Amino acid sequence: MMAKQDTNIIYGRHPVMEAVKAGKSIDKVMLQQGIRGEYEKELRFICKQNDVQLQVVPKERLNRFINGNHQGVIGFISLIEYQSIENVLPLVYEQSETPLFLILDGVTDVRNFGAIARSAEIAGVHAIIIPQKGAALINADAIKTSAGALTKIPVCRENSLVNTIEFLQSSGVQVFASSLEAEGLIQNLDFKIPVALIIGSEDLGVQQSIMRKADKTFIIPQVGTSDSFNVSVATGIMLYEVMRQRFG
Amino acid sequence: MMAKQDTNIIYGRHPVMEAVKAGKSIDKVMLQQGIRGEYEKELRFICKQNDVQLQVVPKERLNRFINGNHQGVIGFISLIEYQSIENVLPLVYEQSETPLFLILDGVTDVRNFGAIARSAEIAGVHAIIIPQKGAALINADAIKTSAGALTKIPVCRENSLVNTIEFLQSSGVQVFASSLEAEGLIQNLDFKIPVALIIGSEDLGVQQSIMRKADKTFIIPQVGTSDSFNVSVATGIMLYEVMRQRFG
Repeated sequence: MMAKQDTNIIYGRHPVMEAVKAGKSIDKVMLQQGIRGEYEKELRFICKQNDVQLQVVPKERLNRFINGNHQGVIGFISLIEYQSIENVLPLVYEQSETPLFLILDGVTDVRNFGAIARSAEIAGVHAIIIPQKGAALINADAIKTSAGALTKIPVCRENSLVNTIEFLQSSGVQVFASSLEAEGLIQNLDFKIPVALIIGSEDLGVQQSIMRKADKTFIIPQVGTSDSFNVSVATGIMLYEVMRQRFG
Repeated sequence: MMAKQDTNIIYGRHPVMEAVKAGKSIDKVMLQQGIRGEYEKELRFICKQNDVQLQVVPKERLNRFINGNHQGVIGFISLIEYQSIENVLPLVYEQSETPLFLILDGVTDVRNFGAIARSAEIAGVHAIIIPQKGAALINADAIKTSAGALTKIPVCRENSLVNTIEFLQSSGVQVFASSLEAEGLIQNLDFKIPVALIIGSEDLGVQQSIMRKADKTFIIPQVGTSDSFNVSVATGIMLYEVMRQRFG
C-alpha cells in the first residue's frame, strides 16, 4: 500500500494518516468526495492540527494520480523540508547579515515559482515565505525551473501571512510591496535595511488584507502600454535593485 | 491544396513556392529528405534569394504537422510582419527618442522569447532584432506569453547580426553585452545614450563572434551560487536599469 507510483505521492488510508500524524512535509491531502465517518473526522482533525491542506475531490481526480487502490485518499509529499521563519530569522541576524525575504502571496504557477526561487538564490535571499494554502506545488517541475535553487534556499510555509508580516515587523524587518497605486519609484526606497518583499499573484497582485500590512509600497518604472512585467521578471528586478543598493 | 490545417502553416509544392516568391513573412520552409530535381533546385534558390531558412527533414516530421498530402514541403507563415532595422532606426531618431534595441542571439525558447518581448514593450524598446536562423518561432504561444506585446513592438529579422551591429554602431548606437568575464557592473554603464543590448542564449550566452563586436560588456551583480538568472529575468533587469537611468 505504501508503494510509490510517483515519488511525490503516498496513498491509502493508513499511510496518509500516519504521514500527516508524523509531521512529514506534506503539501496537500486529497480526500474522495462522499467519504464520511470516523476516518474522515480523524483525518480532518489531524490535518488541521498539522497545518496540512485537505481538499475534497471526485474519485476521477484521484484516479488520475493513482489508478489503483487509493482507498479514497492521496497525500502529496513535499520534495523539500519546509522551515519556519521564526527559526530562520535569528540565524540571519547571528551571521550579521541584513535580512532579505520574499513573501509570495498567491504565486501558483509552478514555472514562475521556480524562476523566482532561482533569482532569489542568486540575490542572496535568506528565505522564501509561502502560505499554507494557495501556493505553487513544489514538484519536480518547480525544482527543475529553479535550476536547483529550491534545494538550497529555505522555504517557510506559514499558516497566516498576516501574522508572519507582523512577526517580521516586530523583529526589525521592513515589509515592502509593489502596487500600481503607489507613488514612489522602487529606486527611491532604502534597501540597505532588513527587508521583506511581498510578491502578488499574476492576475490579482497582492491581496488587500496583506497590502494593508506593508510599511511601504512602490512601482517599477514603466514606459510602454503593456499591463505589467511577468511576476518572475518583476521579482528579478526588485532583487536586482536590492543588490545594486547593497553591493553596488 | 492551399487549405490551412493550422493558420500558421501552408503546404504543397506550388503554394509554398508562390508564398516564398511573393515575399510573404515566412519563418521557415521544411523540405522532405530525398526530394531532388528541378523543384528542389528552384526552391533552394528562391529561399536563398528571399532570406528564408530551408530545412531538410524526414517525411515523418512533416507528417506530424500535416497528416495529409503535403507533397514533401511545408511553409511556416509568420504571425507578425517583420521589419528592417535600417527602416526602424531613422524613425526613432526622427521622433527625438533615444534608441533602445534588443539583439537576441540564440534565444530559441518560445516562452522566454515571449517574456522578453513583454518586458521590452513595457520598457519602451524600439525594436527586437533576431537572426534569420536560430531564433524562436513566433507562434501563437510566443504571442500569448508576450501578453500581446509581439503585436505592438517591431521585430527585425536580420540575415547577419554582425552586420546589424556594425550598422547600429555606424549610426551612433553603442552595443553592450552581458558577459560573465566582464569586470564592470551594469549600473556603472551609461544608458542615457543610444544603446542596443545583446542577449545570449540560455545555455551558451552570446556567441564569441558577436561578443567581439560589443562596445562594452558588463555583469549583473550576484550573491548566491546558482549559475545565473533566467534569460528573460536577466533581460528584465537590464531594461529596468536603462529605465532607472533614463527616467529615474
